[in-house]
Amino acid sequence: MAGRNFLFVPGPTNVPDRILRAMSVASEDHRSPDFPALTRACLDGLKPIFKTVTGYPLLFPSSGTGCWEAALTNCLDPGAKVLIARFGQFSHLWADMCRRLGFEVELIETAWGEGAPVDKYLAALESDRSHSIKAVLVCQNETATGVRSDVAAIRRAMDSVKHPALLMVDSVSALASVDFRMDEWGVDVCISGSQKGLMLPAGLGITCISRRAFETAKHTSSRRCYFDYGEMIQANTAGYFPYTPSLQMMCALRESLAMLAEEGLENVFRRHSYLAGGARAAVMQGWKLKLCAVAPQWYSDTVTAVMVPDGINAAAVINRAYTRYNLSLGAGLSKVAGKLFRIGHVGDLNELMLLGAIAGSEMAMMDLGVNIEPGSGVAAAQTYWRKP
Amino acid sequence: MAGRNFLFVPGPTNVPDRILRAMSVASEDHRSPDFPALTRACLDGLKPIFKTVTGYPLLFPSSGTGCWEAALTNCLDPGAKVLIARFGQFSHLWADMCRRLGFEVELIETAWGEGAPVDKYLAALESDRSHSIKAVLVCQNETATGVRSDVAAIRRAMDSVKHPALLMVDSVSALASVDFRMDEWGVDVCISGSQKGLMLPAGLGITCISRRAFETAKHTSSRRCYFDYGEMIQANTAGYFPYTPSLQMMCALRESLAMLAEEGLENVFRRHSYLAGGARAAVMQGWKLKLCAVAPQWYSDTVTAVMVPDGINAAAVINRAYTRYNLSLGAGLSKVAGKLFRIGHVGDLNELMLLGAIAGSEMAMMDLGVNIEPGSGVAAAQTYWRKP
Amino acid sequence: MAGRNFLFVPGPTNVPDRILRAMSVASEDHRSPDFPALTRACLDGLKPIFKTVTGYPLLFPSSGTGCWEAALTNCLDPGAKVLIARFGQFSHLWADMCRRLGFEVELIETAWGEGAPVDKYLAALESDRSHSIKAVLVCQNETATGVRSDVAAIRRAMDSVKHPALLMVDSVSALASVDFRMDEWGVDVCISGSQKGLMLPAGLGITCISRRAFETAKHTSSRRCYFDYGEMIQANTAGYFPYTPSLQMMCALRESLAMLAEEGLENVFRRHSYLAGGARAAVMQGWKLKLCAVAPQWYSDTVTAVMVPDGINAAAVINRAYTRYNLSLGAGLSKVAGKLFRIGHVGDLNELMLLGAIAGSEMAMMDLGVNIEPGSGVAAAQTYWRKP
Amino acid sequence: MAGRNFLFVPGPTNVPDRILRAMSVASEDHRSPDFPALTRACLDGLKPIFKTVTGYPLLFPSSGTGCWEAALTNCLDPGAKVLIARFGQFSHLWADMCRRLGFEVELIETAWGEGAPVDKYLAALESDRSHSIKAVLVCQNETATGVRSDVAAIRRAMDSVKHPALLMVDSVSALASVDFRMDEWGVDVCISGSQKGLMLPAGLGITCISRRAFETAKHTSSRRCYFDYGEMIQANTAGYFPYTPSLQMMCALRESLAMLAEEGLENVFRRHSYLAGGARAAVMQGWKLKLCAVAPQWYSDTVTAVMVPDGINAAAVINRAYTRYNLSLGAGLSKVAGKLFRIGHVGDLNELMLLGAIAGSEMAMMDLGVNIEPGSGVAAAQTYWRKP
Repeated sequence: MAGRNFLFVPGPTNVPDRILRAMSVASEDHRSPDFPALTRACLDGLKPIFKTVTGYPLLFPSSGTGCWEAALTNCLDPGAKVLIARFGQFSHLWADMCRRLGFEVELIETAWGEGAPVDKYLAALESDRSHSIKAVLVCQNETATGVRSDVAAIRRAMDSVKHPALLMVDSVSALASVDFRMDEWGVDVCISGSQKGLMLPAGLGITCISRRAFETAKHTSSRRCYFDYGEMIQANTAGYFPYTPSLQMMCALRESLAMLAEEGLENVFRRHSYLAGGARAAVMQGWKLKLCAVAPQWYSDTVTAVMVPDGINAAAVINRAYTRYNLSLGAGLSKVAGKLFRIGHVGDLNELMLLGAIAGSEMAMMDLGVNIEPGSGVAAAQTYWRKP
Repeated sequence: MAGRNFLFVPGPTNVPDRILRAMSVASEDHRSPDFPALTRACLDGLKPIFKTVTGYPLLFPSSGTGCWEAALTNCLDPGAKVLIARFGQFSHLWADMCRRLGFEVELIETAWGEGAPVDKYLAALESDRSHSIKAVLVCQNETATGVRSDVAAIRRAMDSVKHPALLMVDSVSALASVDFRMDEWGVDVCISGSQKGLMLPAGLGITCISRRAFETAKHTSSRRCYFDYGEMIQANTAGYFPYTPSLQMMCALRESLAMLAEEGLENVFRRHSYLAGGARAAVMQGWKLKLCAVAPQWYSDTVTAVMVPDGINAAAVINRAYTRYNLSLGAGLSKVAGKLFRIGHVGDLNELMLLGAIAGSEMAMMDLGVNIEPGSGVAAAQTYWRKP
Repeated sequence: MAGRNFLFVPGPTNVPDRILRAMSVASEDHRSPDFPALTRACLDGLKPIFKTVTGYPLLFPSSGTGCWEAALTNCLDPGAKVLIARFGQFSHLWADMCRRLGFEVELIETAWGEGAPVDKYLAALESDRSHSIKAVLVCQNETATGVRSDVAAIRRAMDSVKHPALLMVDSVSALASVDFRMDEWGVDVCISGSQKGLMLPAGLGITCISRRAFETAKHTSSRRCYFDYGEMIQANTAGYFPYTPSLQMMCALRESLAMLAEEGLENVFRRHSYLAGGARAAVMQGWKLKLCAVAPQWYSDTVTAVMVPDGINAAAVINRAYTRYNLSLGAGLSKVAGKLFRIGHVGDLNELMLLGAIAGSEMAMMDLGVNIEPGSGVAAAQTYWRKP
Repeated sequence: MAGRNFLFVPGPTNVPDRILRAMSVASEDHRSPDFPALTRACLDGLKPIFKTVTGYPLLFPSSGTGCWEAALTNCLDPGAKVLIARFGQFSHLWADMCRRLGFEVELIETAWGEGAPVDKYLAALESDRSHSIKAVLVCQNETATGVRSDVAAIRRAMDSVKHPALLMVDSVSALASVDFRMDEWGVDVCISGSQKGLMLPAGLGITCISRRAFETAKHTSSRRCYFDYGEMIQANTAGYFPYTPSLQMMCALRESLAMLAEEGLENVFRRHSYLAGGARAAVMQGWKLKLCAVAPQWYSDTVTAVMVPDGINAAAVINRAYTRYNLSLGAGLSKVAGKLFRIGHVGDLNELMLLGAIAGSEMAMMDLGVNIEPGSGVAAAQTYWRKP
């Protein structure tokens, strides 16, 4: 098909040409005396992204899923209990992994469309007098439903009852796009990946652990080797890795960090918020449709999940968008399959790219018989963005 | 600025990633036994683009301007007379070059907004009983005003009075986007460049000459060396070049030709026509503005020149689009400076890309005080494209 | 430093420009209807590389180390016993991983410089009447010492005593460079990585499992999730992955497979053998030095480990080669640190590249006071390669 | 063929990956407000390369041949007389171009293997009392024979007889590799190209003119348009070009200039001299063969032309090197066809790359029956480079 694909799944996101170029480099000896400079550029450069001074950013050749596993197997003894809310496919998968790895899961079932329920977390923690819960897990941005959670509030809940559990946060589709504060929020493990706000190809698990998590990991007895924090940190300290790292991905990451620094991280957050506002205006003011997120407090600034009207199959909209307009939208997963489509607006993006996606979504919906006004979403987004 | 630039000047056009990749190759010996295969892939591959069986496609390291000069200095004796209509900046520049190179110019002044006036060409040719006119020059697509000319009709005019002049056509912003027929239309020199419909970077002058032009060039006495057809064709015949060619650009061209063949040249034309229809719908039905092209017969399928309302400076619209929305539009040149802006829709393009540009033009115009309805251009183009 | 780095560590190897280009692509939706074609091209394309018809090639976003772990945690119950010979740093690390993951290791200590001792494997298997050994682990090519092992002979040993253990082979620095036969040799798990014979950047764990290994994995109780075979195979069957795969690495792999097919896999093996012969001639006939591999039966065709004379620090040679001649050589690891340097000759390589490395090794050694004749290694390799 | 091609023709030279990456960029509007920054980076950045403060570096989309033509048609009136020595294929071609463009050529025939004969230039200038010679043309580095000329001495000869002719220098295969001093030597036009010392693909004619040449060009009547200095300088002054420039090549040039600045131009010269010394040692001390250059004063530091023994066809050596060893050598041209082959050592190069080429030349020569000692050239170059 002629022209560019409009990639609006909420990850993998658009890799800026500049990053593709940075990645297109000859391999080098990963044990050379020059290599540690690259290692340090990546790891030190990630600290402001995680907003940590004392934590350890780590890079695993893996997906974000691998970093979920690393968090659990490093920080928990076999069979330990975790507390987690489930309100979408990704929080579901994380909870499911806990079970498969043999941990006990205290699950807070939450409506899809809402974020992490702080009151229920509080209640669970409060009633856990014996501190049998060893880790509190939160999904900062549930990619499947386009909702965000208030991690700081979870931390406040933990503190309010002086619960000593570790706080683990999935920030895969939030980090480097919306605010995340490792140190201030007292996060012990933050899990992310390369292919969202960091604008890289998939393949690099990017995680950050607190000193407390690091110390904890020294004494846990869950089996792990590939994802072992201690071995990784020991090698990193010298500027190296326990196994061959991907120079190309590290060069890409260094470039990504440079781009984020040039734009300014807070500006990046503002841009995501500004663009998300336009996307939501298109859906609600323009198309008169509903979001999956049921209230403004849950609105995600990286992904907008759009409920299609009854009688319309969202999967058909997505298919039409892809095959006819070269527009890639995210599907509804599991419980919400067929009921919604998702517009990712995360990473390297501007107004006109998003307007292209909005216009394409309009056309695909109209083609499928959704009753919307041509150009209505575009007009609403334009108006939102042109407000003084 | 975050996200991609929306490049909607009518050239240089978007270079598909696939072509950028094809171009990103190590240099090679241009005298190796393997090199002729590349030369032939390029030159033979250009024949269907020019729709010629008997002509000679040629590649000069130059811009299209260089190929204008090549046409004149190869095919004309010093001081020879040419006939040319002027109806925009590029036909003006070509005529001006003729004068600077010492040729006599019979100029048909034509309103900017119209294409080549066949009747006036005919009149001039008819009255040239002595056949002092040695070349008839036509601009197939005047990039500055967004008008097309009917080259076949010019040929018919020449034939109707049996005028023996050579027919030279500037197809810089038409070739490989709208139909061009070297052999059928009896064109002797077609001049084009790499950076429009062929989707390459600038830097390759791409021209095609008929056998008659080749024969003529053997006997003319205008001084030329770098642009000498004879020397080029002699070297090309063996698969080589008289001076070092750009392997990288030739690899890019080979890939471009492959892409055009895969889509199908007639499909490429249809796509340009279809996209142009949407652009014009946006301007006229959506924004209620006028084109520079004064009648449908002149409408260009590769560039749409939009007249801004009185009191609005088109240059300010362009500047706003660029600095605020990362959208590159073409300026009005010379006579029409400040009065129009141009949307190029040539090369590697699809609906959503163009909708992004239309939406961005809307926003820039509204920001400058033009009274248009938000989303109106987008809606008109959508409606045009969704018609059964 | 001007000019190219001569990368002669035994991995990561040179990534051909063609593969770098293939990798330099925009991200795409990994759940699109077009994606399975890429998945299948990769997985089906790997089958002839593994020489398997019935096995399952798998791609994990990981290093080869991750695939070691996958083999163990999928195919073994907790605490199960494995049999493995240690004769270099990498066989050591794999054995060490077994222990760390809680498996019982029956270790066959072997001199560094020899490959897997078939007789000792046989003895151990023979005496294991109760079949308490659940997996036999072999390193086909010990990268640290430049020795190869005879995997087929290990299989014959197993069969001779009808031992039912699974056969797991580390072919990280052998696959796609020297012969490997999954089905014929009855290998149950073959472990490899992207950054050696497959000529890709690091970051993709490439493994292949037999149907028996797959069936076994369904019933084992070791904890794993990220590296779970069953989930991966289930997703692969539909053309997808359980988590976001790296499109870029998959495109690179597809290109690598195309290159190997174009050259012909048996030709690739012959080229590695031919080049290795020249490297060994340089060391032994030219420089009059010794290999780490103590006998021809152990000579590796992908890496040559060169013993430096007493009194010379091999690390200083490596450092000189790198800092003065832009040549990256492999270091001696662990037991052989300082005693040897390694010339990798694996992947995308030809005579002149290797001659550059040989010449550079000569200069570095001479600079450090090693008594060798200038050009002697080069001459020996030239003579080897020019033999009729 | 596996592995990299060893490109040792004296142009096009190896394009560093870094430059290929810089070139691999999306097209942009060449009339945008951001464009002049790139123009200025290129033009200002070229000034130290030409060692000029007052001159005008210019970029023409062309080969160096185009810049020869530009020099003549801009600075000379029709039929004007030029003085030029011919001692190789490229000085021959330039002289030939002068004739084809209608200029009168006073030709100093010089043996191939020597450089510009200063005494003969002096004699010709001295006897030209009427100052009918309007331009003195010198080839600083004759690429066909591997000889250099002393441009400063030519200037001194001109000054000694107070001859007012313009001094035009072809520095195509010298600029940015060996010293050139526009202002100090009083050069009026320096002609070069992108594909040699500047390490770019072919396609950019790079020239520099003095203020005097610029002033002269305002009053000459030779016909030119594409290559007109005045129009180019006028557009450049505002940061633009008279026709669409190649953004990609300009980005590549900007990167090349950065690389040269990082290494330090004088270091670049030293490196070329050092590498050339090794190449000559290989030929003379190692292989016991002769150079085409007949005396040290003529030795070129960018290309070494090697005379093959009687009875050997140099073209067969070149063909063998290419087809068997993936090594590209330069051929003998015209008078010296079959008698010599050329090793280019210009641009992005280091010892090991050149040793690979030397070793490959040895093998090709031995294969063709030339009686040389294996490794002898390599050893001689190694010894030369290892001298304290």
